[in-house]
Amino acid sequence: MSAFNKLVKHSQKVSHFNHLSAICGWDQAAVMPVGGAKARSEAMAELSVHIHGLMTQPQLEDWFAEAETESLNQEQHATLREMKRQWQQANVLPEALVEAKSLAGSKCEHAWRTQRKENDWQGFEKNWAEVVRLSQEEAQIRAESTGTTPYDAMLDIYEPGTTSEALDRVFADVKTWLPGMIDDAIEKQRGDLVLEPNGFYPTERQKALGLDVMKLLQFDFNHGRLDESVHPFCGGVPSDVRITTRYNQDEFIQSLMGIVHETGHARYEQGLPRHLAGTPAGEARSMGIHESQSLFFEMQLGRTPAFIDHLAHLSAEHFAAHNDRVFQVANIQKLYTRVKKDFIRVDADELTYPAHVILRYEIERDLMNGNIKHTDVPELWDEKMRASLGLSTKGNYKNGCMQDIHWTDGAFGYFPSYTLGAMYAAQFMAAMKQTVDVDAAIRSGDLTPVFTWLSDNIWSKGSTLTTDELVKQATGETLNAKHFRTHLTQRYLG
Amino acid sequence: MSAFNKLVKHSQKVSHFNHLSAICGWDQAAVMPVGGAKARSEAMAELSVHIHGLMTQPQLEDWFAEAETESLNQEQHATLREMKRQWQQANVLPEALVEAKSLAGSKCEHAWRTQRKENDWQGFEKNWAEVVRLSQEEAQIRAESTGTTPYDAMLDIYEPGTTSEALDRVFADVKTWLPGMIDDAIEKQRGDLVLEPNGFYPTERQKALGLDVMKLLQFDFNHGRLDESVHPFCGGVPSDVRITTRYNQDEFIQSLMGIVHETGHARYEQGLPRHLAGTPAGEARSMGIHESQSLFFEMQLGRTPAFIDHLAHLSAEHFAAHNDRVFQVANIQKLYTRVKKDFIRVDADELTYPAHVILRYEIERDLMNGNIKHTDVPELWDEKMRASLGLSTKGNYKNGCMQDIHWTDGAFGYFPSYTLGAMYAAQFMAAMKQTVDVDAAIRSGDLTPVFTWLSDNIWSKGSTLTTDELVKQATGETLNAKHFRTHLTQRYLG
Repeated sequence: MSAFNKLVKHSQKVSHFNHLSAICGWDQAAVMPVGGAKARSEAMAELSVHIHGLMTQPQLEDWFAEAETESLNQEQHATLREMKRQWQQANVLPEALVEAKSLAGSKCEHAWRTQRKENDWQGFEKNWAEVVRLSQEEAQIRAESTGTTPYDAMLDIYEPGTTSEALDRVFADVKTWLPGMIDDAIEKQRGDLVLEPNGFYPTERQKALGLDVMKLLQFDFNHGRLDESVHPFCGGVPSDVRITTRYNQDEFIQSLMGIVHETGHARYEQGLPRHLAGTPAGEARSMGIHESQSLFFEMQLGRTPAFIDHLAHLSAEHFAAHNDRVFQVANIQKLYTRVKKDFIRVDADELTYPAHVILRYEIERDLMNGNIKHTDVPELWDEKMRASLGLSTKGNYKNGCMQDIHWTDGAFGYFPSYTLGAMYAAQFMAAMKQTVDVDAAIRSGDLTPVFTWLSDNIWSKGSTLTTDELVKQATGETLNAKHFRTHLTQRYLG
Repeated sequence: MSAFNKLVKHSQKVSHFNHLSAICGWDQAAVMPVGGAKARSEAMAELSVHIHGLMTQPQLEDWFAEAETESLNQEQHATLREMKRQWQQANVLPEALVEAKSLAGSKCEHAWRTQRKENDWQGFEKNWAEVVRLSQEEAQIRAESTGTTPYDAMLDIYEPGTTSEALDRVFADVKTWLPGMIDDAIEKQRGDLVLEPNGFYPTERQKALGLDVMKLLQFDFNHGRLDESVHPFCGGVPSDVRITTRYNQDEFIQSLMGIVHETGHARYEQGLPRHLAGTPAGEARSMGIHESQSLFFEMQLGRTPAFIDHLAHLSAEHFAAHNDRVFQVANIQKLYTRVKKDFIRVDADELTYPAHVILRYEIERDLMNGNIKHTDVPELWDEKMRASLGLSTKGNYKNGCMQDIHWTDGAFGYFPSYTLGAMYAAQFMAAMKQTVDVDAAIRSGDLTPVFTWLSDNIWSKGSTLTTDELVKQATGETLNAKHFRTHLTQRYLG
């Protein structure tokens, strides 16, 4: 057997264990009773150790060296590149550091759940100091291995190929026009009459509505499910994708669009190249590209007048509320496009969302590169929030720098993916419109042309191309934030 | 670390992987979409290979030898004995045989699903020949290692300590009185007016009813769940027990008692000794003892007039059918105690069930010991069915020797567990009644005294005792089938 084939076989073996991890992870979040937690976390920890052991087997180094000399076609080259990337990621850190960071992260995150509610920065800061210190150490080691800055090395985990140099440029541009656009949009919406949902929307009906919307979005129910969990997510494996939502019986707006968002993630997973299953080349390209698919569904498709028309009608039908003015198309449209300056990222609207992300990006970049201290963060947060959204978070830690889970266990480098995803989504839509009558497809209720484009250009590529290659092949250019600006201008000021 | 402690640690490691297998197995049966099957079975196969690899690691032999010389307390001795038993079971067969049997079994079982419907003995027999041949080979190898007959070696997998000599004696006795008792019971019931459920019993209400009955039976919902699957089962792990049922909206009788049965299995699992979790000594004693708990719930508790009273009232309430005569206590009682000679084991009543089991026992014993050929089975089946229940299965394979799944993949030696379970259950009840006013406890709706007895005498013992020791400590004697006969006489001829 060639070294390349040995690597593929090994990769498939690892993927089988990742499969079990994904399903048990879903189970933990969606159905496991509370009392099952301890034994489950022990079993999952054992599995992690086993997977890490497989990823760091010594013979892999020889196989990689040998495979580099073998004659491979283009797809095999891409497979080798991605296998090597994952192998390097798994091997670059000393085991003691991985363990220390995992322990410190768990401790900090666990305490944060209480500390956030209590606005207890002092308490949080003590645990977080260690997480930041170990993350900086991690960034340093990764940077030495990749020859980049520490922050870029962390970014590379989630967004291979993206650099802070590129992000600085893109985000600096956004900062020149976003605050003005937010103000203009709020001004334009002033005086709009928006009716809030004010009935009782039973879980069972919301679920039936969600399933209907998933059908409209051609979710493959032969290879996936919809369930409930406290924090909605998309999990499972490509052949069996598990999305979740949570229902609030006082309103249906949030869960409904949440399902559209997760269905975007799910169709990407369901559409990954089957013949590469079990190898990294068959996996999703990056967090940013994954988010581009969920945001394509949620923002690019989901908030168009044509799609809102479907949502309004389906909702009115499921809640037997045809005469309720809440369900009028124009009202639903307004509910989904209201702009408001507020503190919390996860509740932010499409237009203010990038401001939340850029603030976090600037802070985590400087933190990882050692240019600021972790104790500087609250003040910087306040300063940047005032500059971008005119809101002060002085002393308001829980709605400021303590609001997100990401940093509590050291996931520095993740935040940019959200806004990169929004930008890629806008760029994909602009490109798609060159050849597809998107609006007509949505109106007809058969969105096949839209999904065919996404499948051909994004989903079926897996990780066989780099992000830049993928975006360039799909749209004729690499990341161009102008499409995002145009999209926002048309939607909010058009 | 002592060799004993090394073995315990290793056992806990294996149990973590078994945990993942149990949860993914539940997932497969209860929630997995059809399209997920292929990738799942590959992942599960990889896990099996890994677990088998752990169970057969060469250093275990040394650790066992060393542990035998260490100073151990009684519980540790039991733990060592059970660890060794599982280790021997895993190591006795050549890997090639395990693989060949697994393949032949899967092939035979898969084809059987169609062949059974089509009454296709000729087709089935061709695949089954290989399964029988490989099972005979397995039995031979196991027999050589344990110094017993081939069939006893197979029996030992499911019922350690039980021999066909003991079963021959017990079953020979049953055969002297059972046919007469069946005839007498049918005669006694002749002319009884029994009203069949004839309404529409929605799944949601059946589920709510089932959950109420599980509460009455003190199922721990903090450590378990109720779900649906095509074939009801009890799975998961002791800290998170998953039981399933299936609902037929035309009647509620079957699913309801099915839930009582599975709750018996579940409470045994939930009641196993936590401090021995992860070692074989902390696991259920045997298939027969497991079945004794489900049958204790279903037959010894579930069919008493006092319990039927609860079932009838709860059912009438959930289906808002207080005036429906179907729900009268006497009618529900009759529905649950009707005796009928029929072909199918899984549909058989309490009284005819042992006849189905003894027939299978006699055939599989002679087959494994090489005294009959697999092609003799249909004729033997017909002969024994005529003798025990007066029914001929000549040419009627699908309702004869092709009705069960067990033999299709070579699970020879399992069937006796069902009737051993029924006998142990009757014996436990007789012993319990010496100190517990069972009827008063059931009537009061607080069954704690019943469950305390079961927990103290059975559940909390795990596998720290042999089956004989367990039964003797609990009841003062080893298996005594007289209690079963007394129970049946009282219920059906009393």
